[in-house]
Amino acid sequence: MRFIISKSHLVNGLNIVTKGVSHNTPIPVLTGVKFELKEDGLILIGSDTDISIKTFIPFKENKKEVITVFDEGECVLQAKYINEIAKKMEGERIEFELIDGNLVKISDQKTNVNLNGISVEEYPFIDFALNSEVIKIKGDVLKRVIQQTIFATSQKETRPILTGVNFKIDGNTLEATSTDTYRLARKKIVIGDTAYFNVTIPSKSLTEISKIIEGNEEIHISFYEKKVIFKLNNTIISSRVISGTYPETDRLVPKEFEIKLETIAGDVISSIERASLLTTDRNNIVRLHMSPDKIEISSRSQEVGSVVERIEEFKYEGSKLEISFSAGYVLDAIKAIGSEDIEILFNGEMKPFIIKGKKDDSLTQLILPVRTYQ
Amino acid sequence: MRFIISKSHLVNGLNIVTKGVSHNTPIPVLTGVKFELKEDGLILIGSDTDISIKTFIPFKENKKEVITVFDEGECVLQAKYINEIAKKMEGERIEFELIDGNLVKISDQKTNVNLNGISVEEYPFIDFALNSEVIKIKGDVLKRVIQQTIFATSQKETRPILTGVNFKIDGNTLEATSTDTYRLARKKIVIGDTAYFNVTIPSKSLTEISKIIEGNEEIHISFYEKKVIFKLNNTIISSRVISGTYPETDRLVPKEFEIKLETIAGDVISSIERASLLTTDRNNIVRLHMSPDKIEISSRSQEVGSVVERIEEFKYEGSKLEISFSAGYVLDAIKAIGSEDIEILFNGEMKPFIIKGKKDDSLTQLILPVRTYQ
Repeated sequence: MRFIISKSHLVNGLNIVTKGVSHNTPIPVLTGVKFELKEDGLILIGSDTDISIKTFIPFKENKKEVITVFDEGECVLQAKYINEIAKKMEGERIEFELIDGNLVKISDQKTNVNLNGISVEEYPFIDFALNSEVIKIKGDVLKRVIQQTIFATSQKETRPILTGVNFKIDGNTLEATSTDTYRLARKKIVIGDTAYFNVTIPSKSLTEISKIIEGNEEIHISFYEKKVIFKLNNTIISSRVISGTYPETDRLVPKEFEIKLETIAGDVISSIERASLLTTDRNNIVRLHMSPDKIEISSRSQEVGSVVERIEEFKYEGSKLEISFSAGYVLDAIKAIGSEDIEILFNGEMKPFIIKGKKDDSLTQLILPVRTYQ
Repeated sequence: MRFIISKSHLVNGLNIVTKGVSHNTPIPVLTGVKFELKEDGLILIGSDTDISIKTFIPFKENKKEVITVFDEGECVLQAKYINEIAKKMEGERIEFELIDGNLVKISDQKTNVNLNGISVEEYPFIDFALNSEVIKIKGDVLKRVIQQTIFATSQKETRPILTGVNFKIDGNTLEATSTDTYRLARKKIVIGDTAYFNVTIPSKSLTEISKIIEGNEEIHISFYEKKVIFKLNNTIISSRVISGTYPETDRLVPKEFEIKLETIAGDVISSIERASLLTTDRNNIVRLHMSPDKIEISSRSQEVGSVVERIEEFKYEGSKLEISFSAGYVLDAIKAIGSEDIEILFNGEMKPFIIKGKKDDSLTQLILPVRTYQ
């Protein structure tokens, strides 16, 4: 194996595939990035078995030479070293040469690195093939679906299915749902294709996919029983899906509400942030006091003191209500909505409430209140 | 105590004095900031006994009202809470009122905080008076002296005196020295005053002082046997000095050298950074290979591989030499020098070497080489 590659293409490719590499995997070869120099380009692969990422760097791009090939071949180089070396080398073009066994020479004008590789025979075969059932979705749309739901996944491994985001494709609608049992986020979008699938994708995979998505590239998604494959531009990502049935959550989301508060996202965010400054409990519980003529957010800690915040701009329909909740949950939900005009819908002090953008039913953020004794 | 203060002045003052507050002090009252509202302004004080910081906010500044006073008085408020509250409140003017015992009400239009204070009687008396022996030095000059020496102080508490920077004022020269016994940094400057002192100031105090210095304000420094006091604008900082005699280091610094390498700081920095990418030992040992016609920097790790870097631009006087050193020590030293043209002066493979700016004898960086078996 011997080739010369444009530094920026190499760095970019390594940046993508090393998102799939874990440094504490029990399989040593998976700490590496696999280089496959084929007849039409260089393939880079990184995998921790939960997520596998493959990217393709063609020999030519827009008629300009990206890679000059002398000999085809393969090697596996430790991700943490090759990534840093590529980033820090100064030349615009970097030469790779397999010189002896697994030893690879990486060089430019100033720098000469001999890097011990890992035996390429040990690298497992990973199937990146898309099947015939593919849905297409724009990169920025998928990125937003992920961002608006991923924070509500569970951090606890006791119910593994809740550590992922559930994607339910039913005809031409995609419904992404996440819940940690204290809150729930649900985003519905219409897609151009028709399909029927129900898979739960680990949040770690979605985080990495989100970072790789550039903008409005078209993403092809192919669903299997045990994995899901995303193809975007020259990159293919394969993620395992979490086994098990995602809980039925439809009945948790109320359809009707007795009380409606319309207000400004920024005001509520800054008031909750100030109110939670003095909370000493782990969950930062704050209390919302509402009546048709006054909205306040308060917190109280025996030890430290108390805060009362007044919300100036609002519209309120319904009877008086006081309700306590985790500051972080409400902040996450409002920030995920991302619009200034929001609605918060209630049915009572201990009933789940919903936060949504005004006139936007595509995203639902549901939160369970907390019982307090004030 | 009741007053209204401009938010920006309050935040700025708290920013300064909370640099002196430690959150895990054994003296509870010192987790607080002391507010003293006197006849001409507000005094804020923060202290962890090693370093104490006092700042003064006058009632008027440039004829504009900064503080409106209703009642003089004192209180102590927990630093971590009051700092965050002041930063996050939205009003341009914030009202403080001692309402009951140690309870202080802090409010603007939207926010109403009741913060439990700490009993002001418990706050220790701290003497910030300057004595008659004062030297004056410009803020940016002192900041640079600190920055060019502080990194070479010892991190180990086994010899406490080495955890500080030694300031020796002998007539009208100030010599700042730091060493962790593996390297030494020494900066000499001429000062306008004449004084004779030798004190060692804890590096933590110098770090905080450095952050408070704004630019070219004149700093007055007053030396006592057990403390040193810095006065800058409206702020006074008192730091303990480390007891004990600083070791005599003059004889460690060679006066003559057999070998001289002149080269470019940026080239050496980037070459050492690349060479140390593959080092697996804790000290990142790299090796410099020098002869009149070739300069290389290399590293080798049995497990990972090797790097050879070529330095293109240099002037070399003397015989061939190979010398090994800790990459981090040389990087720290070159970065502290801060000029592109540097000189490195050697006397042999196991003799200390010196790095300095070309034609600049004010700053000396001395480093001990490391024995390697290659």
